[in-house]
Amino acid sequence: MNLRKGNLMSVRNDIKVVDVTIRDGGLCNNFEFTDEFVKELYKTNIKSGIDYMEFGYKASKNMFKKSDFGKWKFCDEEDLRAVVGDNLSDMKIAVMADVGRCDYKTDFAPKSESVIDMVRVACYIHQIPAAIEMIEHFHELGYETTCNIMAVSQANSDQVVQALEMLVNSCVDVIYLVDSFGALYPENASELAQMYIQAVEGTEKKIGFHAHNNQNVAFANTIETLSYGVSYLDASVQGMGRGAGNCPVELLLGFLKNPKYNLYWVLGFIENYMLSLKEQGVVWGYDLQYLFTGLLNCHPRDAIEFTANDRKDYAQFYTTLLDNI
Amino acid sequence: MNLRKGNLMSVRNDIKVVDVTIRDGGLCNNFEFTDEFVKELYKTNIKSGIDYMEFGYKASKNMFKKSDFGKWKFCDEEDLRAVVGDNLSDMKIAVMADVGRCDYKTDFAPKSESVIDMVRVACYIHQIPAAIEMIEHFHELGYETTCNIMAVSQANSDQVVQALEMLVNSCVDVIYLVDSFGALYPENASELAQMYIQAVEGTEKKIGFHAHNNQNVAFANTIETLSYGVSYLDASVQGMGRGAGNCPVELLLGFLKNPKYNLYWVLGFIENYMLSLKEQGVVWGYDLQYLFTGLLNCHPRDAIEFTANDRKDYAQFYTTLLDNI
Repeated sequence: MNLRKGNLMSVRNDIKVVDVTIRDGGLCNNFEFTDEFVKELYKTNIKSGIDYMEFGYKASKNMFKKSDFGKWKFCDEEDLRAVVGDNLSDMKIAVMADVGRCDYKTDFAPKSESVIDMVRVACYIHQIPAAIEMIEHFHELGYETTCNIMAVSQANSDQVVQALEMLVNSCVDVIYLVDSFGALYPENASELAQMYIQAVEGTEKKIGFHAHNNQNVAFANTIETLSYGVSYLDASVQGMGRGAGNCPVELLLGFLKNPKYNLYWVLGFIENYMLSLKEQGVVWGYDLQYLFTGLLNCHPRDAIEFTANDRKDYAQFYTTLLDNI
Repeated sequence: MNLRKGNLMSVRNDIKVVDVTIRDGGLCNNFEFTDEFVKELYKTNIKSGIDYMEFGYKASKNMFKKSDFGKWKFCDEEDLRAVVGDNLSDMKIAVMADVGRCDYKTDFAPKSESVIDMVRVACYIHQIPAAIEMIEHFHELGYETTCNIMAVSQANSDQVVQALEMLVNSCVDVIYLVDSFGALYPENASELAQMYIQAVEGTEKKIGFHAHNNQNVAFANTIETLSYGVSYLDASVQGMGRGAGNCPVELLLGFLKNPKYNLYWVLGFIENYMLSLKEQGVVWGYDLQYLFTGLLNCHPRDAIEFTANDRKDYAQFYTTLLDNI
């Protein structure tokens, strides 16, 4: 039985591409993008047919000092409006709220007063009850909501089943499969995705996928899971994101057959804005050190440090990681 | 019905990893590797559990001037023996013979007089009869043989069916699915692989896969096709190969569960030999220009030229390619 939805030529109108460049990419440069960069990316995304643009985190100003980060760590309404005005486009605006790192009761206005359309709640699997509390709150304020269960490659299957059951009974709109450690291959990413899809069958809820590129399969995992019915697809320009980065939006737009998506505009943005970012020394993307942490299914922090220190002693680093698991 | 052979934990004893670094990588540096590089790679491959090492082409000296290329364009027996002696290891030695570019009747000694174990015959689909003639000759000389049908993404299905039928009736040992243009995704690479596998069912013949990384799915396509029963897997160190390169051997060794494979030794080789190659200006690997030719299912030559000219005007290049198809 072929469980794939459609084929490689199908237009899947349920697909939503979510650009996470500023949010996940912000983890590479402390959210210190120029205003011009963010504004041009916003315009590029609209022209490219991107469905959602995630601008950053709504982090707690009690826990994080404003002056220590760029503005997209906090996504104040006035900063968003300075870029998008009243956002008269069809593209929707998303922000991320981390469980335990967000003053969600005080920092969100009702949807009617905000240009934000969707709040994405990120949590680890043991934080699902806390995430649901936040999701219910955002739902009451009028926002679309997602629950992004991170590091699912470390959770056991029973936990995942229970988490999905709880989320299916909540008001969340989209449940995300998040491969935080880049530990999944197309084969098990697809199996997990099918488990998520079965869990929401018969409801209006959708499934999303957020990849990391540790084993250079972020794009492959994204298109494989989408072929089984995942519809919310996270991607970023040139894969910009923590460590090995995410699914590159240019590969994804090249793949998708819906004529609303247009690769051309992203290319100009890369020429004019991404190349200089790299020249300034902002680093992300697949490299051997990330392969190791992906393979060992662990947090990329040691690999990020290895990268920051410009180390090249891969064999030694791999041996040390093996000793420490 | 799950058509996959085994699961992600299985040891598949039918798997053979073929290192193509010198042969496909040689297309990036005119086969001008130092003797030390080749010797160290040979030793590394043995320690890593690699099953076959492809040393290069057996190109016609009537068509190509010896002084214009490094020695691995020709793979003379004495050059091979200078590296491998009598090759007392379990690893087998392969060379490639291109249809129409090889004096195969004069340039190959009988297997009993050569350290070469396997001759891989590369052809386009219309050259299958010529390839089979060569394969029968190499078989009579005592060599293992493969037929690598290149650019299969441009062939129509009828042609592929006919080619497979002819090869099944020949004495070839391994039939290779070759994604020369990096145009395949895991979904259609797997479908094609299953077609090849069905064609050889009931025979002793095996199927191989050779990927190109234009759309950054060389590794993903390799592990997806292997999961459906492909057993000969081409890979190269850091994916070194023409244009966007091949499946990186370090990703593949990380993936394979057979304890005979050992990632560690490849890492030392990368530190000591690959990094300096890159510093010398040898260029390969995924980049936007290769994505375009992969997407458009065309030869990477324009993208290789774009790379050589250090151009970064991706949008313009993409537009020109679109105009020319």
